[in-house]
Amino acid sequence: MGSQIGKILSVTTFGESHGQGVGVVIEGVPAGLRLDASKIQSFLDRRRPGQSPITSPRNELDRFEYLSGIEDNVTLGSPLTIYVRNHDQKPSEYSDLNQVYRPSHADFTTLQKFGVKAKSGGGRASARETIGRVAAGAIAEQILAHYLPEARIVAWVHSVATITCNVTDIEKIERYAVESSMIRTADPNAEKDMLQVINSAMQDHDSVGGIIRCVISGIPPGLGEPVFDKLEAELAKAMLSLPATKGFEIGSGFLGTTLSGSQHNDIFINKGQKIGTLSNNSGGIQGGISNGECIDFKVAFKPVATIAKSQPSLTVDGIPVVLEPKTGRHDPCVLPRAVPMVEAMAAIIIADHYMRNMFSKI
Amino acid sequence: MGSQIGKILSVTTFGESHGQGVGVVIEGVPAGLRLDASKIQSFLDRRRPGQSPITSPRNELDRFEYLSGIEDNVTLGSPLTIYVRNHDQKPSEYSDLNQVYRPSHADFTTLQKFGVKAKSGGGRASARETIGRVAAGAIAEQILAHYLPEARIVAWVHSVATITCNVTDIEKIERYAVESSMIRTADPNAEKDMLQVINSAMQDHDSVGGIIRCVISGIPPGLGEPVFDKLEAELAKAMLSLPATKGFEIGSGFLGTTLSGSQHNDIFINKGQKIGTLSNNSGGIQGGISNGECIDFKVAFKPVATIAKSQPSLTVDGIPVVLEPKTGRHDPCVLPRAVPMVEAMAAIIIADHYMRNMFSKI
Amino acid sequence: MGSQIGKILSVTTFGESHGQGVGVVIEGVPAGLRLDASKIQSFLDRRRPGQSPITSPRNELDRFEYLSGIEDNVTLGSPLTIYVRNHDQKPSEYSDLNQVYRPSHADFTTLQKFGVKAKSGGGRASARETIGRVAAGAIAEQILAHYLPEARIVAWVHSVATITCNVTDIEKIERYAVESSMIRTADPNAEKDMLQVINSAMQDHDSVGGIIRCVISGIPPGLGEPVFDKLEAELAKAMLSLPATKGFEIGSGFLGTTLSGSQHNDIFINKGQKIGTLSNNSGGIQGGISNGECIDFKVAFKPVATIAKSQPSLTVDGIPVVLEPKTGRHDPCVLPRAVPMVEAMAAIIIADHYMRNMFSKI
Amino acid sequence: MGSQIGKILSVTTFGESHGQGVGVVIEGVPAGLRLDASKIQSFLDRRRPGQSPITSPRNELDRFEYLSGIEDNVTLGSPLTIYVRNHDQKPSEYSDLNQVYRPSHADFTTLQKFGVKAKSGGGRASARETIGRVAAGAIAEQILAHYLPEARIVAWVHSVATITCNVTDIEKIERYAVESSMIRTADPNAEKDMLQVINSAMQDHDSVGGIIRCVISGIPPGLGEPVFDKLEAELAKAMLSLPATKGFEIGSGFLGTTLSGSQHNDIFINKGQKIGTLSNNSGGIQGGISNGECIDFKVAFKPVATIAKSQPSLTVDGIPVVLEPKTGRHDPCVLPRAVPMVEAMAAIIIADHYMRNMFSKI
Repeated sequence: MGSQIGKILSVTTFGESHGQGVGVVIEGVPAGLRLDASKIQSFLDRRRPGQSPITSPRNELDRFEYLSGIEDNVTLGSPLTIYVRNHDQKPSEYSDLNQVYRPSHADFTTLQKFGVKAKSGGGRASARETIGRVAAGAIAEQILAHYLPEARIVAWVHSVATITCNVTDIEKIERYAVESSMIRTADPNAEKDMLQVINSAMQDHDSVGGIIRCVISGIPPGLGEPVFDKLEAELAKAMLSLPATKGFEIGSGFLGTTLSGSQHNDIFINKGQKIGTLSNNSGGIQGGISNGECIDFKVAFKPVATIAKSQPSLTVDGIPVVLEPKTGRHDPCVLPRAVPMVEAMAAIIIADHYMRNMFSKI
Repeated sequence: MGSQIGKILSVTTFGESHGQGVGVVIEGVPAGLRLDASKIQSFLDRRRPGQSPITSPRNELDRFEYLSGIEDNVTLGSPLTIYVRNHDQKPSEYSDLNQVYRPSHADFTTLQKFGVKAKSGGGRASARETIGRVAAGAIAEQILAHYLPEARIVAWVHSVATITCNVTDIEKIERYAVESSMIRTADPNAEKDMLQVINSAMQDHDSVGGIIRCVISGIPPGLGEPVFDKLEAELAKAMLSLPATKGFEIGSGFLGTTLSGSQHNDIFINKGQKIGTLSNNSGGIQGGISNGECIDFKVAFKPVATIAKSQPSLTVDGIPVVLEPKTGRHDPCVLPRAVPMVEAMAAIIIADHYMRNMFSKI
Repeated sequence: MGSQIGKILSVTTFGESHGQGVGVVIEGVPAGLRLDASKIQSFLDRRRPGQSPITSPRNELDRFEYLSGIEDNVTLGSPLTIYVRNHDQKPSEYSDLNQVYRPSHADFTTLQKFGVKAKSGGGRASARETIGRVAAGAIAEQILAHYLPEARIVAWVHSVATITCNVTDIEKIERYAVESSMIRTADPNAEKDMLQVINSAMQDHDSVGGIIRCVISGIPPGLGEPVFDKLEAELAKAMLSLPATKGFEIGSGFLGTTLSGSQHNDIFINKGQKIGTLSNNSGGIQGGISNGECIDFKVAFKPVATIAKSQPSLTVDGIPVVLEPKTGRHDPCVLPRAVPMVEAMAAIIIADHYMRNMFSKI
Repeated sequence: MGSQIGKILSVTTFGESHGQGVGVVIEGVPAGLRLDASKIQSFLDRRRPGQSPITSPRNELDRFEYLSGIEDNVTLGSPLTIYVRNHDQKPSEYSDLNQVYRPSHADFTTLQKFGVKAKSGGGRASARETIGRVAAGAIAEQILAHYLPEARIVAWVHSVATITCNVTDIEKIERYAVESSMIRTADPNAEKDMLQVINSAMQDHDSVGGIIRCVISGIPPGLGEPVFDKLEAELAKAMLSLPATKGFEIGSGFLGTTLSGSQHNDIFINKGQKIGTLSNNSGGIQGGISNGECIDFKVAFKPVATIAKSQPSLTVDGIPVVLEPKTGRHDPCVLPRAVPMVEAMAAIIIADHYMRNMFSKI
């Protein structure tokens, strides 16, 4: 249990970082949808390592193949399976890591839970597992494009360490603009400082964290459920299920706790033919249900645990040792690659709730 | 869909704020467990309004009855149903509210989603719905007490508006100490300032928000799943499904994004017979799985939307009006009553994952 | 687990035969549906004991109340809860039964599984649990009536012991006609013989079994899923989950295994504007999906285990004893009361699959 | 939805008969289990066509590969994926079939439901889909072998057309004995007649149906749930989800409906150290829960729809045509190959309920 998300659009990922490959089975894709494979590949390309000087050099092309559910690019209504073979797995490179717990990795907890020392170390809790999510997100986005052509999901790097980008008109930020930034941020001024922070971390053999902001526009009122499956709760789970995440906030978030109710309340106003709100402290969701304003949330990513410094640790037998860094696979900042992951998870949740909402009333 | 949470310990709440009553069906409670009804009532009492001068005067005793699943206080292994009748519902009091959308309530979104103008306004997305959660949490805690007698779940008000409590030794804070504070905070110094802020908001006919911190100790390594059902993801969903929440963070949280990896990594050390970590930036969870350190998270609650001030709004037909405050039901600060809600949701998630973990290995 | 059925229309029953009461929570009822309470009560009345000289005299009026999900008879889109209090439970009457396993009851297996000797003996596996199913079925039928006004679900007693009814034009048999028969059969000739068999069993302090046939007409092609959730598989599970059932067959059933393929194949023909089949050995379902012909299945019910004869048995400690019959609660033939149970389960499955089918294609 | 079965041991099949391949993702396999790949291959070999003169000549080796979840033959606790590439798919051979509905196939209903004319015709409702089930069953059996080494699941062909095998001591029948029969029956006398019936059907370009019986021994009391997930209900669904099935009965089944209660009741007796029953009309399950006696059920399979005779039919546009037989892929009797399918589905259900039962009591 626990490798599946979504109730109508049900996404199950499989595969280990250092096994044969990784993939995803998606149930609930309606039949008759023409999928654009290049959009799936493009999502995978944005996620993969080795895209730029500041990302991990693991050399994977991450070409996907369909195993099922589609014929001549048209979905059949059956489970759609996407698979990406691993080519660059080097279990031997990891063999001694297996004997020493890497700090703030999943090695220790995975061994405690499953009792198996696998080559893959932290097992499923890895960046590579997100390939399946990203492919599923690219498909979810195409489902949404059919039902809600106005919908737009755009994420960007909001901060790196203490450097925060300063943007207005968040609904107007477009994905191609974010893509034109090496860091996938939305503020060219901040970008320079962010790059400096990242390069400095790289030179220090260290890593930095940051925050991703995601804005979803063009969503009608009514998506989400009023109790446990509140739309923000579902988004929070989806985001906190991404590796290295430590926090989620929507609309006014943590800062909003310092406001008074009269400052915080979003006043209803007429916006042309529809009812909207003057402010958007609610982040587009009220009582768990979308209100038609843009959905606006942030996700905190810790600094990557893999660093190129010596660190004290323990062997699996509890013997203190110094863990020496490997040259090689090391991203000083995971944020740019996490942008498509955030978008993908958001697309899965929104598409699932769009379909769930078909039944809400007679 | 959406009124159910938990995979093995499955909790479904039902009932509307202004209907006949509210309740919960819990599947997955093992047979043969002797339940202490007074502990369930005590959880409900901590949640209910009218406990102190600073909470809403809605006058409900919230006495629960078992409808099923138990005989002579011993569970039968069948669905356990708990029911609390509504006595103080005053739908007439709400009748004109039905015509005007209350700012930052669920009225608008509920009507958009379900198309029905119910007496209960925001319907299920209400504080009263949490009665079922709190009762289920009190039972989950008794299940946990059987399997993990060391486990302790303690939450408290970490901040009100900008007043933050200052605590050390978070594992040592006990529930009775929190209960001795009218605000359910853990720092007597901060309490006085918090009370002043709340009273001031009450005099201004306004409301304030704040943050609840929750610490779970005595949890062995191995709870949680490595992919979508990461323990922090499940907790995030559970917390964001509570009314009025806007954010969740675990361990180092949002602030941790400003640290470097070498500062943030939790170094493994021997702690007596077991392996622990020197710091706890991970918040007790690594790779989605508990590591044996205490689980430590925070939840942001917005200032309550119901205030005793005039506010502009719209009728359901889009006509601008001024919404005049009702005397009566109004909590200037929901935080103290939210403490048992946070504990209850945490207990449900932890108990569910304890049982899920029974299968993780041969 | 195991008290829930249905994926979109999700039905959870609760309650023990000799506890406070029994009920059902139904998630997935669309908002805005006006429910006719008298139709629900009528279904419950058809199920309850004491309707006629040949049924158990347990004296329960089985008046239901709504606990949630409805206001002014219009559904709210939230969980709809229906509750029936037990009035005639006589646990004392059962107290010594608790010490002796009743043959072919659930006493032994329930104690083995749950380890609790409850007053309710066989616990949840009881006829009284079906109250929740029947109420849910009555609601499912009203959902169907909205979406598929042509749909008709009619069940009747097909055989009692070796007496089998002989009917033609099964699609034309109507529920009121079945109701006019004390045995709820569809063949007045057979009825007389059936009554004689039942009366004879009653005089012998014994019981008889039989078969119920159910025909569902007016269902469009496309309901059901091609793999595990084949419509016939879902119906089979629903029927075999009713107490006292031993078999399920659809269309040609077991007898069809003696035909050749060329005899058994249903030839496609034009029927007015739509495509139908000449014969209906498929029973209205091909490849797990409805084909527009009427769905036609049979369910085998064993002779009731409770008889008014002395029987050898064992105490819970394995001591051989003779179990003396109780006067009192004893149905010589459960078939007539099982007719609405079969219809109710069929309605739940069909309504669930109707809603599931909304997503099958773009 | 609908490609998944099992709650703890969750099995999802994917793939089309004439697509890239077929496979299965199994969640819930405990970590640390050493799997014997040859047992999986052996199950697949028993299922595959071309085993003997009486089965379809489709030429597939059906060699499986693991895509995930296992390292050095030891399970990792993550989703276990098994994949079998299609080699012999000949979509062109099927191209004109696509224009004509084959009688009693899934072509018509699949097109009605999904609106897509796929090469694979009946799509997922095919014999080839069962590869994933059979692989999952072979794994479920190995899980069971770990927890319940006494457990045995043995199925055989009980009848072909009107030829029925006559066996006693059903618990003693072993799989290797069944395997030694070309028809996989358990009565050498009946086998000769069955073979004659099948050969005769083959010469007539026709097909025959029959019944498979399955006996599960060595199961302790307590497996199954008392309400919707009764063990017999779960088995019924699993069996009716296999292609070409029309009926399911357990224990006394349909014939049992002609007995009286006093004949039918299974009297409890001491059997050595444990309590058993004198007869086994219950088929090993009472009140939905296993009672320790052997579980004994039958499954009806219709005569295969694909025959080598001309048949009238309609094109997708409703034009009457004669469908001419293809030489080639045609099994006159699917029963022998269905034996491992029945065993596999039984193993999945029993293993799932074994794990579910871990929580039933404290």
